[in-house]
Amino acid sequence: MDIIPYLLNLRNNQPLVHSITNYVTVGECADIIQSSGGSPIMAHAIEEVEEIVSKADALYINIGTLSDDLLPSMFSAIRTAAQNHKPAVLDPVGAGATLYRTETALKLLAQGEFTLVRGNISEIRSLFGLHGRTRGISAAAEDSIQESDLDTLGEMAKDLARDRNCIIGISGPIDIIASSERLCFVRNGDPIMPRLTGTGCMLSALSAAFLGANQQDPFEATVAAFCMMGLCGEMAFKELQKGEGPAFWRIRFLDLIARLSLEELDRGARYEMR
Amino acid sequence: MDIIPYLLNLRNNQPLVHSITNYVTVGECADIIQSSGGSPIMAHAIEEVEEIVSKADALYINIGTLSDDLLPSMFSAIRTAAQNHKPAVLDPVGAGATLYRTETALKLLAQGEFTLVRGNISEIRSLFGLHGRTRGISAAAEDSIQESDLDTLGEMAKDLARDRNCIIGISGPIDIIASSERLCFVRNGDPIMPRLTGTGCMLSALSAAFLGANQQDPFEATVAAFCMMGLCGEMAFKELQKGEGPAFWRIRFLDLIARLSLEELDRGARYEMR
Amino acid sequence: MDIIPYLLNLRNNQPLVHSITNYVTVGECADIIQSSGGSPIMAHAIEEVEEIVSKADALYINIGTLSDDLLPSMFSAIRTAAQNHKPAVLDPVGAGATLYRTETALKLLAQGEFTLVRGNISEIRSLFGLHGRTRGISAAAEDSIQESDLDTLGEMAKDLARDRNCIIGISGPIDIIASSERLCFVRNGDPIMPRLTGTGCMLSALSAAFLGANQQDPFEATVAAFCMMGLCGEMAFKELQKGEGPAFWRIRFLDLIARLSLEELDRGARYEMR
Repeated sequence: MDIIPYLLNLRNNQPLVHSITNYVTVGECADIIQSSGGSPIMAHAIEEVEEIVSKADALYINIGTLSDDLLPSMFSAIRTAAQNHKPAVLDPVGAGATLYRTETALKLLAQGEFTLVRGNISEIRSLFGLHGRTRGISAAAEDSIQESDLDTLGEMAKDLARDRNCIIGISGPIDIIASSERLCFVRNGDPIMPRLTGTGCMLSALSAAFLGANQQDPFEATVAAFCMMGLCGEMAFKELQKGEGPAFWRIRFLDLIARLSLEELDRGARYEMR
Repeated sequence: MDIIPYLLNLRNNQPLVHSITNYVTVGECADIIQSSGGSPIMAHAIEEVEEIVSKADALYINIGTLSDDLLPSMFSAIRTAAQNHKPAVLDPVGAGATLYRTETALKLLAQGEFTLVRGNISEIRSLFGLHGRTRGISAAAEDSIQESDLDTLGEMAKDLARDRNCIIGISGPIDIIASSERLCFVRNGDPIMPRLTGTGCMLSALSAAFLGANQQDPFEATVAAFCMMGLCGEMAFKELQKGEGPAFWRIRFLDLIARLSLEELDRGARYEMR
Repeated sequence: MDIIPYLLNLRNNQPLVHSITNYVTVGECADIIQSSGGSPIMAHAIEEVEEIVSKADALYINIGTLSDDLLPSMFSAIRTAAQNHKPAVLDPVGAGATLYRTETALKLLAQGEFTLVRGNISEIRSLFGLHGRTRGISAAAEDSIQESDLDTLGEMAKDLARDRNCIIGISGPIDIIASSERLCFVRNGDPIMPRLTGTGCMLSALSAAFLGANQQDPFEATVAAFCMMGLCGEMAFKELQKGEGPAFWRIRFLDLIARLSLEELDRGARYEMR
């Protein structure tokens, strides 16, 4: 694939991304959408979600601080996105950690209208009844993604993608992106990233922005988003000065999202299409 | 006007500013109020807003993540502010973007008790039935403020101020501040500022702090707030190191708000009273 | 006491800390829990709090943006923590500022199950009917803690601890930590800290993380948390570069929490057991 047009479209089209998300990382999600070239709007009132989604270029649903009063708005937003052929992303934060989250994520999925479901391996497993072991909002240690598991996990992801008719994006030391037909591994990223809250949420938000600006090929748009996230993560880590840790990393990372050149993305992206 | 006393009063009086605002930029609003010299309190429970407003020095209402369950508290807070002669600021985030926001902002305005309404040009236009074209939470490109439009827009703002008996603050490349009698243009600011989420919300919060500490002249207090916001924005941009972008700008900006000297404000403020 | 094992346990055990907290500083609370070595989860839905608390290592309740719809979840969480012998921390933000907060904090306390109640001196006084003068969310100036008051305040704190069968943690220029039997003063910290929003909330969150990893001695775990908070605060202040203020302090502080060595904590902690 040629990755350059995906970032170029994002910066030129300034897609409006509507998010119904949690109140912990909502500011960072707005920041990454804005920095990447998109235009964020956060809104959850049932009175306006239909109007917003119909004007937006992409929808992002995140269940990080879920409660039942958000569900009618989430369902209305998903339905509207589907009717208007707008890409929609689900981040099932903490699926597997509680029955409530798993079941609600399944209800949202049952609408059958997501373009992309992005989670860590524990969340994705839980969502598909595959014995996930989410602890809090992190992937369980025994669920980590290693080179030796890639073939198996890749096939699993393709099966899930086929079942649900959506792209499955699993983030981890190696990212796995699967549609019913295609499979890709992304090897960008830095070990500091799971040490911060919000990196998963931000990746989903960034994916929504890429999808909103690149409706011609959602699979490759997702790959581009994962590469950019991981690459900016690596580069931000290298920029850290003496004594700087995760908090500075986040600032440097967001500014890399804002300034990464098309050439840097093209040169640094490490994806392997299968 | 002599701008120095406005900042001096803010730092000396430490006004308590009560905010009912959105959950995206609420942390930044608290930060700017605190850094400027004020004391922030965020609260939305109907059981306590009346008590808080009656003890506070200013009220800040922001509809960025509006929902109907917040309305009784917003109305109670506005009423209490009016009864106690406390200044109140409305930030109609996204007015024009959805019917729900436009209508709710109009209902809040219909109380007739705001000291200041601050928005971008699209939001303000929408609010007054003037064909605004808000896209998400940003001003539409075709709504931008240019030198050649200033006379027309200035008269429009004065009309609106007269109609609603409040100060109108329109932020943009050139800011317009109008009361029924007075008009001021502010030329501080940096083009990086609209590239961040939260700058509009922060400006409204900062205005509430200035108003809370300077009830003797709300118009000039608003001018002082807009000058300080823009000036710190310019200075923060100049301080950016190689590779730093919007995320670092926000940190540097907030620290400038905390340390800007009276003399720097006096020297750097670029306002033109008409 | 030997302070080293407390931080070591926190980093080795990675306690899962469940927070029901305010939407202003929630991101910073997640950050400090994560940076310190813990694993944060924020959730408030009544459908899942029981399940989360039963799997978590500690519970953190903060009433910073209280509303009645959160109360059933708070009560359920507190009950579950008690039944499962999990430590629970209450941060009564703004108690004394409004009747609603004072009364709600008292209702939560009446459950009788908190391990630690942490507030500023005005909040703690208010909570115990002792003429607190909270202004907004800050301690009143006339309520500040000075060397000459330490004996009196220390006895007061021990009385309160005995009454409520919990540890009382009062933060200020000198921190006071009391159980029914023990008393400790902590002299770490920097005057910049009360100039930021969120430092109190973060201290409570950090205490919950220490308690979750150190159930063998909650009193000393609390002392360790207060020392670490104050010490990292001092060190962060010393690291500030020219022009940097509270916003940079917060970033540097969080990164110090992430990297402080056991030896630095041992050498820098200034606590006085009485």
